Amino acid sequence: MFKVNDNYLKLPGSYLFSTIGKKVNAYSAAHPDKKIIRLGIGDVTQPLAPAIIDALHGAVDEMGKAETFHGYAPDLGYEFLRNAIAENDYKARGCDIAPDEIFVSDGAKCDCGNIQEIFSLDNKIAVCDPVYPVYVDSNVMAGRTGTYDPKSETWSDVIYMPCLAENGFAPELPKETPDLIYLCFPNNPTGATITKAQLQEWVDYANKVGAVILYDAAYEAYISEPDVPHSIYECEGARTCAIEFRSFSKNAGFTGVRLGFTVIPKDLKSGDVSLHALWARRHGTKYNGAPYIVQRAGEAVYSAAGKAQLKEQVAYYMNNAHYILNGLKEAGFTVSGGVNAPYIWLKAPNGMTSWEFFDYLLENVNVVGTPGSGFGPSGEHYFRLTAFGSYENTVEAVDRLKKIRL
Amino acid sequence: MFKVNDNYLKLPGSYLFSTIGKKVNAYSAAHPDKKIIRLGIGDVTQPLAPAIIDALHGAVDEMGKAETFHGYAPDLGYEFLRNAIAENDYKARGCDIAPDEIFVSDGAKCDCGNIQEIFSLDNKIAVCDPVYPVYVDSNVMAGRTGTYDPKSETWSDVIYMPCLAENGFAPELPKETPDLIYLCFPNNPTGATITKAQLQEWVDYANKVGAVILYDAAYEAYISEPDVPHSIYECEGARTCAIEFRSFSKNAGFTGVRLGFTVIPKDLKSGDVSLHALWARRHGTKYNGAPYIVQRAGEAVYSAAGKAQLKEQVAYYMNNAHYILNGLKEAGFTVSGGVNAPYIWLKAPNGMTSWEFFDYLLENVNVVGTPGSGFGPSGEHYFRLTAFGSYENTVEAVDRLKKIRL
Repeated sequence: MFKVNDNYLKLPGSYLFSTIGKKVNAYSAAHPDKKIIRLGIGDVTQPLAPAIIDALHGAVDEMGKAETFHGYAPDLGYEFLRNAIAENDYKARGCDIAPDEIFVSDGAKCDCGNIQEIFSLDNKIAVCDPVYPVYVDSNVMAGRTGTYDPKSETWSDVIYMPCLAENGFAPELPKETPDLIYLCFPNNPTGATITKAQLQEWVDYANKVGAVILYDAAYEAYISEPDVPHSIYECEGARTCAIEFRSFSKNAGFTGVRLGFTVIPKDLKSGDVSLHALWARRHGTKYNGAPYIVQRAGEAVYSAAGKAQLKEQVAYYMNNAHYILNGLKEAGFTVSGGVNAPYIWLKAPNGMTSWEFFDYLLENVNVVGTPGSGFGPSGEHYFRLTAFGSYENTVEAVDRLKKIRL
Repeated sequence: MFKVNDNYLKLPGSYLFSTIGKKVNAYSAAHPDKKIIRLGIGDVTQPLAPAIIDALHGAVDEMGKAETFHGYAPDLGYEFLRNAIAENDYKARGCDIAPDEIFVSDGAKCDCGNIQEIFSLDNKIAVCDPVYPVYVDSNVMAGRTGTYDPKSETWSDVIYMPCLAENGFAPELPKETPDLIYLCFPNNPTGATITKAQLQEWVDYANKVGAVILYDAAYEAYISEPDVPHSIYECEGARTCAIEFRSFSKNAGFTGVRLGFTVIPKDLKSGDVSLHALWARRHGTKYNGAPYIVQRAGEAVYSAAGKAQLKEQVAYYMNNAHYILNGLKEAGFTVSGGVNAPYIWLKAPNGMTSWEFFDYLLENVNVVGTPGSGFGPSGEHYFRLTAFGSYENTVEAVDRLKKIRL
């Protein structure tokens, strides 16, 4: 008689965004006349840039002719894309990453979720708190997190690194030594980031204790300050301790196009076993490549026209971010983020919990955000707003938020 | 200090197709004047059909305008695609499958590789021998297969079901009871298939012993005989014991486009835990959907124009299959498959091993096939040819094969 993976049954409740969806739908059904503005989910709204549309059309035409048709893609991704990534995202920033250390995939979420698979089940993970739920949930499913305490909303075998106003939302080195350290900067959900010097401390620490840093740099395109690293490989020694995840979702609006990549330097080893070889084996066995047309679209992100158009697109969203940040500051809210990231992290006023504030905003000003507690216990009393809406909706949402009197 | 997943280290050697690639490249480098014809890998060669190209262009245009831009796709896939699948692949064949039992993905390889994750690690798998390597390798990586015996090339905790000429390349019910049974019909690599009555026996058996059948129907479009089932849900009782994997790779040439789906009926349960819910949780946590433009391309597969064009495309490949099958029969080879599948299964002459025959063909007639032993011990002395080449190359390859005198 077959049995299921019991670890799945340990996962508490439903996924954050489905709970939000249900609440919004219920309100909407009861109040069909109200215009709800969603500044909750991290999905983009601007259309794909013209250079990307052109590349897609061109690649589609290629697929329609026998001479230029493309079947299965190479395991690691097409060279034209890996070369463009190595050149623009790494070499141009002084990082020593070769094209064959880059694994093209259908997105950072899949890679962040799957990466734990190449590690031993008794490895201990450390995560920021609050945190992107995928890091923890994928380890729960694998059976690496121990037991869940519903009261504290924490797992017994996970090391939590609180990110609070007191530490500038930057984690401190953990007291207990982890094997795998998930870091995401610029951060989802807090919008905070760390300097190159701070990241160098993490790299030195990981090399010292023999840990691997799983570095999620999905939001690097939003960095505006000079001393913030775009890649962990800007730090010395990262080649022996860090895996980096990148996405095209937020810098190029690919949430519905699906493209990302993972970098595993060949120097990253456990004894003589290279993590690069293990991930290559996983890629070859359980994955079949990103679509050719999508990889051509990814290449266009690095073209001169693509770069110029996407710079404008990021600027559009960051203009929203500044509008939210400054508007809410003026209105007396406690806010952070929004400078190097499309996320604004807002303290719920008057000691309200995250969900109380969610309900209050939905019902009173018809604005939807994301309850910070959904990202972990240290997110309680916080609230995430995103800059991915249209400018018009963002302005209207901020105007409504300014009017509330609590 | 971090540790790797040791199970990965148990995997023997490199992936079958990379070994073939290396041998072909070496020969090609040494003999640059020779024209090598590849009838080895299962990749398609015909361009995408016009109806699909039109759908792709249309969807790309939508992505370029804010009003019709699509971000993150719904977790299970777009309704327009799931409705088309439910209607055409299931309802039209009398199968009771609802759109919300269909999970759209980026391909059957990923789903076949990932599905084992929702089952307990102590579940025992049964596989046909020979078999598509992904089923076994993904279970090795998870730690479900015991120890490897290099002599017999088998795993201690896997139940092998030999598929040989004696049983018409159809597996017999195993003596030891499995928890998970991988079946693939029409079969890769043998090209054999089973009748609806035979498949009904498997469904009855699985329901009796409490096993789940993981049914890979990636090649169903190639079925030409009337009593061969296109879906396992044509069998009574399959809703309580079977998961089905489908692909757009071979019926619509999507190997480089990436689209597939998995069906998990809501009646498939372990106690009160539904496998549908577990897979939905995995999908939601570790996957982010197939691209919108690709899902629109998938929808076009079911349009009137798409159906007509793809019928021709499948007929083109099956014409190749018949040419290979009949040509080799005439030449005195022992061959099977090629009637309901794009694969021809050929017995190596004169007691040669699969790899001996591979080397012989590469060196003497410059034709590349796939050694049957690469698919499992019972594939030894066999050889797989595929019908996915161009007609001209197929004819030339068969002419060359006819000339060999062993």
